[in-house]
Amino acid sequence: MITIALAGLGTVGSSVAKALLEDGEGISARVGTRLHLVAVSGRDKSKQRGCDLSRVQWHDDPVKMAALPDVDVVVELIGGAEGVAKEVAETALLNGKHLVTANKALLAKHGMRLAKFAQTKNKGLLFEAAVAGGIPIIKTLRESLVGNDISVVRGILNGTCNFILTKMRAEKWGFDQALAEAQRLGYAEADPTADVDGHDTANKLAILSALAFNTEPDLASVSVEGIRAITPLDIQFADELECRIKLLGVAIGQNGCANLQRVGAALVPLSSPLATVDGAMNAVMVRGNRVGDLALVGQGAGGEATSSAVLSDLIDLGRGAWQKGVLFEGLGSAATGSVSKFTTRSRYYLRLMAMDKPGVVADVAAILRDGNVSIQSLLQHGVGEGNAVPIVITTHAADDTAMRHTAQAIGRLPSMMAPPCLLPIED
Amino acid sequence: MITIALAGLGTVGSSVAKALLEDGEGISARVGTRLHLVAVSGRDKSKQRGCDLSRVQWHDDPVKMAALPDVDVVVELIGGAEGVAKEVAETALLNGKHLVTANKALLAKHGMRLAKFAQTKNKGLLFEAAVAGGIPIIKTLRESLVGNDISVVRGILNGTCNFILTKMRAEKWGFDQALAEAQRLGYAEADPTADVDGHDTANKLAILSALAFNTEPDLASVSVEGIRAITPLDIQFADELECRIKLLGVAIGQNGCANLQRVGAALVPLSSPLATVDGAMNAVMVRGNRVGDLALVGQGAGGEATSSAVLSDLIDLGRGAWQKGVLFEGLGSAATGSVSKFTTRSRYYLRLMAMDKPGVVADVAAILRDGNVSIQSLLQHGVGEGNAVPIVITTHAADDTAMRHTAQAIGRLPSMMAPPCLLPIED
Repeated sequence: MITIALAGLGTVGSSVAKALLEDGEGISARVGTRLHLVAVSGRDKSKQRGCDLSRVQWHDDPVKMAALPDVDVVVELIGGAEGVAKEVAETALLNGKHLVTANKALLAKHGMRLAKFAQTKNKGLLFEAAVAGGIPIIKTLRESLVGNDISVVRGILNGTCNFILTKMRAEKWGFDQALAEAQRLGYAEADPTADVDGHDTANKLAILSALAFNTEPDLASVSVEGIRAITPLDIQFADELECRIKLLGVAIGQNGCANLQRVGAALVPLSSPLATVDGAMNAVMVRGNRVGDLALVGQGAGGEATSSAVLSDLIDLGRGAWQKGVLFEGLGSAATGSVSKFTTRSRYYLRLMAMDKPGVVADVAAILRDGNVSIQSLLQHGVGEGNAVPIVITTHAADDTAMRHTAQAIGRLPSMMAPPCLLPIED
Repeated sequence: MITIALAGLGTVGSSVAKALLEDGEGISARVGTRLHLVAVSGRDKSKQRGCDLSRVQWHDDPVKMAALPDVDVVVELIGGAEGVAKEVAETALLNGKHLVTANKALLAKHGMRLAKFAQTKNKGLLFEAAVAGGIPIIKTLRESLVGNDISVVRGILNGTCNFILTKMRAEKWGFDQALAEAQRLGYAEADPTADVDGHDTANKLAILSALAFNTEPDLASVSVEGIRAITPLDIQFADELECRIKLLGVAIGQNGCANLQRVGAALVPLSSPLATVDGAMNAVMVRGNRVGDLALVGQGAGGEATSSAVLSDLIDLGRGAWQKGVLFEGLGSAATGSVSKFTTRSRYYLRLMAMDKPGVVADVAAILRDGNVSIQSLLQHGVGEGNAVPIVITTHAADDTAMRHTAQAIGRLPSMMAPPCLLPIED
C-alpha cells in the first residue's frame, strides 16, 4: 500500500480524487498494491467536487499536509512556478516523500532543484501530467527512448492555441473571434497570454528538451512567439501549400546539449502526423537515432485525461518501479546562451502585404537573392485590406538567421503595407 | 551491472549487439548502470554482422547459453512459436534469468505459460519489441494506462501490408504487383502468407488485447482476414469517401474480457490519426475511459527501430524498474468462444460487381431493407472487367453479423459477377 496526499482540487485534482476513491479497488488490483488517498487540501472545503471526500482527511494548509508523517506520496496539483506549489513540492521531498506533480511552470523553472532534493532523499519526482496531458511522453523519454540519441523533439503542446488555429481554418475566422469562442467554451482563460503568446508551450518544451538531451531545464533559452500574428489569409495560403499552421515547440540538440529551443507558429506539411492533430488535441514527435520518428497523439488537457497521467505516476510508485535519479542530469551545460549561436536550416513561408504596383516582386526577389535565399514558389492572388496585395513566397532550405534578416530587410521596403509574416515549414 | 546473453543474430539481434558494444558506455551512463553483453548465439559464427563480437562469448547452442550461471538477462530474438525459441525462453526463466523477447508468435501462443514461469521465479518477462517495433505500446499499456478501463485497441501492426496498400494507392497497382515490389525491396518474405493473410497482425493483436483487457492471450479467438481481396477499385472508392484502406487489428473489450478480436481490412476516415500512417509505418490507437483516444505512430519493423525497444527493456531491467507479475493476469476467461456471440455495430463499405442491367439496385436495396441495414450513400460509375459495373454502398451503423449475412445474400443474386467486398468503416 502507498498512502497519498493530494494538494489542489481543481479540475485535475478532483478527477484524481474521484478515480482513487471510486475506482481505487479496480486500479489497485491491476497495480498489485493499494493506492490509498488519505489526505486532501483545496481552497474551499464546501465546494462540490463530484466525489465523497468525507472519509479523507481535509487540510486547509497544503504545506503542512505535505509534511504529514504517514504520507508516502504528495501529489501537487496547485500550479504556478512559485508560492504555495513550490513550498508544497519542496516540503514533500525534504520530508522524504515521493512527489507527483503536473506543474510545468515549477519544473521548467525549479526542476533541477527539485530533482536534487529527490536524489538526496532517494525519492521519486514524477511528472507525467506536466506535459501534454494524457500522452505518456515523459515516460517515453525517460524510459522507452533512453537507448537512443535524440536529435529533435517537436510538439503541439497547447490545446488552446490548437483549438484557435483549427477554428480559424474551419470557420474562416480571425484570431480574435476564434479566441472569444475558445474563452466561451472554457478552453481559454480570461487572460489568454500564457497560452496564445506561447509561454505555456515554452514551459513544456523546456521540460521535454531537458529529458531528451539530458540537460537542466533551461526556460530562459527558449525563443518564444505566439499565434496572434496569424491571419485567416495565412491559414488559407497554408492550405494551398498542402500544409497546416500549428503552434509548435521545437527543440534540436544532442546528448548533453539542447542547441535550439523555439516556440512559434509553423507550417506543417499534410504528410506529417502533426498536421491532422486538430482542436484541443496535443501531439509530440521525437526523432531518435534508432527509433526514427515516433509520434504520440492524444488529449493534452482536461481533468480526466490528465488524471490518467497522474495515476500512471502513482502506479509506478505503488509498484516500486519508478525511475531513480534519471532526470535533469545536467550532463551538459544546457542550452544557456547557445540559441543565437546555433543556426538551423529549414524551408520558410514568407507572407507579405504589398502595394499593388509594378516592381514590388522584383525588389523582394533582389533582397532574397542578396540574402542567399532561394525561392521555391511564389503565390499572389486576392486583395487584402486597403488594396494591399498578399504575396506568399516559399523558400528552399535557408539558414534561419539569414532568413530572419532577409525578411526584416524586405519589411523595410516602402512598398510593404504591413510587417512580413515569416514561418518555418517543418518538414 | 547486468549481464546479457543474446540468442539470435538476425537483423534485430545484430542491431542490439552493435548498440551494446559500440554505444554501451553512453547508454549505460544514461541508465545509471552497465548493460554488459557477455554471450551471443547465432546460426553462423563467420557471418559479418557490422560489429566486433570477438570479445563476447560465442555459443553454438542458444539453449545451453540460456542456462549460463553468470547471465542475468537472456534476450531471445530467434523467433517462432515453438522449437528453439521456446526452449531458450523457458530455459532462461526456469534458470532464474530475466527474459527479453521480440517473439510475438511465442507470446501469443505460450505467453501465459512464460508469464507463470517468470512470476514463480520473480523475474521479468519483457517484450516491448514484440509488437509494433520501436513504438512503446507495451509499456504504455502495462504502465501508463493502468489507471484506465480500456475499451478499444486498434492498430496498423504489419508494415508489409501497409506498404502494399500504400503502393496500390500511390501507383494504382493491383495487389500482386504491389506485393512483388514489397518482395523486391525486402519488405515482404518469399512466402508472404504470414503478413498478407493477417496472421502476423493476429499474433500482435492477441498480445495487445491481453494487456489491454487483463486476459490471457487468446490467439484462437482472433478472426483473421488479410488484404488479398482488396482491389485498386476499392482503394479508389475509399479515396472518394475520404477514407484510406488499412489492415487493422481491432480488439474491443473491458477489464477481464476481450469481447472481439478482429484482423481485417477496413476503411479509416481521413480524420483519424491512422489514416495518414503510410508505407511501412505502424500505429496503435487505444481508447481509455480517462485518457480518451491515444495514438502512437512510428516504425514498426527494421533492426534499428526494433533494437530501440529491446534496449528499453534492458534499461528497465538495469534500473530494477521492471514490472513484476503484471501481465497476462487472466482475470477473466479471455475471449474464448465469445467472438461469435458478441456483435459490434459499425458503418460498412460494400462493393459489388454487378451486371449492367435494370433492376440490380432495386434487388440490392430490397435485401438491405430486409436485413435492417440502412443505406448512407450509393456510388456507381466506371465499368470493371467483362462489363461488370462496380456499385459501392456505404451503410449507417449496422450490426456486424446482420451485415455479413446481408452481404452474403446479395452475393447470391444472379446479377452479381463477383463476390461482394465488405469492409467496416472504422469511425
